[in-house]
Amino acid sequence: MPRVVVHVMPKPEILDPQGKAVAAALPRLGFEGIASVRQGKRFELEVEGEITDEVLASLREAATTLLSNPVIEDVVALEVEDA
Amino acid sequence: MPRVVVHVMPKPEILDPQGKAVAAALPRLGFEGIASVRQGKRFELEVEGEITDEVLASLREAATTLLSNPVIEDVVALEVEDA
Repeated sequence: MPRVVVHVMPKPEILDPQGKAVAAALPRLGFEGIASVRQGKRFELEVEGEITDEVLASLREAATTLLSNPVIEDVVALEVEDA
Repeated sequence: MPRVVVHVMPKPEILDPQGKAVAAALPRLGFEGIASVRQGKRFELEVEGEITDEVLASLREAATTLLSNPVIEDVVALEVEDA
């Protein structure tokens, strides 16, 4: 079944407390040399049938309205796998 | 600054209530034809200096121990950007 992967990240100007927490934890656990961490989301959508331009446009709309909050997040990528 | 992107997904045998909630919401909002949704995490790590094999090995360890919970999650990809 074809799969679409949607990548969502907090906008650059938005504070990312989860990412900050990870960045602070890394050196405590012995992992040095990481300047910053941002945490976002990754969605894998299994699509029924073929992925046409129409389906993709609809998925892009779903990504920007339902999968992400456009006030604070950007859809940074939308990848089609096994199309 | 070089960036490493870590992709974490719930293991296939693990229930994913967030993904199920998204999958249930899609048709209600008019997006049909999605068989299933899984929700995972995406981390962007800005790395100081060059990404050597050693740095990458250390990041891989951080990904499997700190960025993911190996009991319920898999690190599905670790990508180097602008290396």
